[in-house]
Amino acid sequence: MKAILIICDGMADRPVKSLGDRTPLEAAKKPNMDRIADEGICGMMYTIGPGIPPGSDTAHLALLGYDPYQVYTGRGPFEAAGAGLELKPGDVAFRANYASVDDNLVVTDRRAGRIQSPPELEEAIRKIKLPVKFQFKNTLGHRTVLVLQGKGLSAAVGDTDPHEVGKKVLEAKALDNTAAARRTAQILNLFTKKVYQALRNHPLNQQRKKENLPPANMVLVRGAGVVPHLEPFEKRTGIKAACVAAAALVKGVCRLAGLEVAEVEGATGNTQTNLKGKIDATLKALERNDLVLLHIKAFDELSHDGKVKEKVEFIQTVDSYLGRLWGKADFLLLTADHTTPAEFKEHTGDPVPIALAGPGVRRDEVKSFGERSCARGGLGHIRGRELVPILANLMGRTKKFGA
Amino acid sequence: MKAILIICDGMADRPVKSLGDRTPLEAAKKPNMDRIADEGICGMMYTIGPGIPPGSDTAHLALLGYDPYQVYTGRGPFEAAGAGLELKPGDVAFRANYASVDDNLVVTDRRAGRIQSPPELEEAIRKIKLPVKFQFKNTLGHRTVLVLQGKGLSAAVGDTDPHEVGKKVLEAKALDNTAAARRTAQILNLFTKKVYQALRNHPLNQQRKKENLPPANMVLVRGAGVVPHLEPFEKRTGIKAACVAAAALVKGVCRLAGLEVAEVEGATGNTQTNLKGKIDATLKALERNDLVLLHIKAFDELSHDGKVKEKVEFIQTVDSYLGRLWGKADFLLLTADHTTPAEFKEHTGDPVPIALAGPGVRRDEVKSFGERSCARGGLGHIRGRELVPILANLMGRTKKFGA
Repeated sequence: MKAILIICDGMADRPVKSLGDRTPLEAAKKPNMDRIADEGICGMMYTIGPGIPPGSDTAHLALLGYDPYQVYTGRGPFEAAGAGLELKPGDVAFRANYASVDDNLVVTDRRAGRIQSPPELEEAIRKIKLPVKFQFKNTLGHRTVLVLQGKGLSAAVGDTDPHEVGKKVLEAKALDNTAAARRTAQILNLFTKKVYQALRNHPLNQQRKKENLPPANMVLVRGAGVVPHLEPFEKRTGIKAACVAAAALVKGVCRLAGLEVAEVEGATGNTQTNLKGKIDATLKALERNDLVLLHIKAFDELSHDGKVKEKVEFIQTVDSYLGRLWGKADFLLLTADHTTPAEFKEHTGDPVPIALAGPGVRRDEVKSFGERSCARGGLGHIRGRELVPILANLMGRTKKFGA
Repeated sequence: MKAILIICDGMADRPVKSLGDRTPLEAAKKPNMDRIADEGICGMMYTIGPGIPPGSDTAHLALLGYDPYQVYTGRGPFEAAGAGLELKPGDVAFRANYASVDDNLVVTDRRAGRIQSPPELEEAIRKIKLPVKFQFKNTLGHRTVLVLQGKGLSAAVGDTDPHEVGKKVLEAKALDNTAAARRTAQILNLFTKKVYQALRNHPLNQQRKKENLPPANMVLVRGAGVVPHLEPFEKRTGIKAACVAAAALVKGVCRLAGLEVAEVEGATGNTQTNLKGKIDATLKALERNDLVLLHIKAFDELSHDGKVKEKVEFIQTVDSYLGRLWGKADFLLLTADHTTPAEFKEHTGDPVPIALAGPGVRRDEVKSFGERSCARGGLGHIRGRELVPILANLMGRTKKFGA
């Protein structure tokens, strides 16, 4: 038995006045989503818990069955894993970005003029010598990730990023009294020094000076997180799974959980993403896997930007692609990772609708996929961590507890 | 205030094509069950948790309010208690069965030709001397239970049952590095040796040889479990309770929880069971108790055998007896311990319907007892462990927490 788990990032919403007090889902024409609701069993899901606004990382940990309160150590490790770095439990990962500093190490631009992933600078930084092994990688735009590797490291270190223009690059400080924290802070400060040495007169920055562009002569790090040990999803559940996603954080969670992560050309996470390519990748991944998690991101971006009308349109666009999934897996499960009300523009803790169609399902009377229709469904209100056990049970993949 | 808790083992199901996509409960004519739903409040129950297929033992632990993840140590102790053995916390219980072995202790028949509870062999084995007290009892057919008693014992021992014909009786091995485990393994190996000595030339086996029947010259043991300490149900809840059941496992759970366990002649656990006798026993037990758990087994057996039509019929048969309970207790609570879909033939983790009628209940609009009708009920989705507190509250037997 195979299943596709469709996660529409931030698609759930609240009633919007300009939509006649309907939510974007309730206002959209979305025959394929409604078909899953109609032929399946529906319900509502608190991804983390009632009233808790989930992040994309904690939400996906919960959706894969992990307890985010146990395993979540911050965004860094998941972003690093999402960027394709090979991580081991105990490594310490940081979010980082290129920045511009003056001769006194005062930050003049926190994004180095939004420089676009300069491979020369990435290479220069990788050549730095530190007392530990490390990985450094450009991700999107001015963003990068840094991972310190090996034993005797700690995530209890402060940022070097002052989070403000006009302030000096911070000296990283140990946040507890352990030798590991002090050592990690020292290594970070050495990193700051050596990055500046390596980039200050780098030919690319000389070129940028000529072009009157701010130099990318510093890397600011923040958000230390130790790479958690996640018991592999397949070992926990017996289900071989893959992930099709554009968002680095989601890819990172899936990669650390041991899922196969597909790379899809043109999958950007915005409304221009290659939806056809993602559907193709889903169907291809399904050949080798029991479960494919298909993550679609742009609902969330539109909600953060307050674009109600565009959100309705994007729901309709995505819906038109979902028809291709029908009949390709035994089970289709449609949900969101969290609510992002387009008028509130932030993640909220409202529950999200869920619909699950496939053999053996106790089909209920819900006929459309929405925040209010699904609240009358047969599944009742579940938690994110209960999603995989409920699906695995229907797939015949759970083991009896007891005799 | 008195209550009857009717637990129909494995009665819950999934939609079945041959029943017009109805479940057996939805297809059956069952006016008495529907009356409880109609006059009561309904809901769904995950006995253990969402998606977790319960065993009969873990399910009943949860239904009596215990956390099976805390107290469940394996099937052995509950089966032994169900067979009527007096157990103490710390005793180590094993499932066991008569088997046939050759001169080299190679198993030739794991069930000794399905020998039927031979009292002579039970007696012969009870006479064996071991360095600890022990109990041994025939249960059903070739099945028996063995309990080692006293201090310094461990359940961390392997089986002597090779689980395969053509293999030698296993030497029991300690599964951890404790003296108790090593000692228990030694005792088991001595048991194997002494059983063979006692049964090899037993007159019954000489007789079986003449009749060309496989000898019952060995007892294979498996599934060691230490007898858990269950805080008595009455002490936990203030409710004096009894159990009417045929299934040894259910009787065992109830006995270890301190419930009075009725013995009903002709209660077999199959469709031929003495339902009238069980109803009589329930009403009789209710005279001395506040709560009687009436367990009816054969739904599960029919489901394991894939007998959809017979399951519908048995629901109707049981229903016809339930009318006698009406008016005999303040509360009637009807549910199942787990779902066993007749087309899947195994316990599954789907929730079960529940209906509770009696004074003070917030009667809802559900009019029939079924897996989908009850999902619209006023109780919502509950867990097995919440059942007794909900009932005790209505019975006026709970204490205020706080001021």
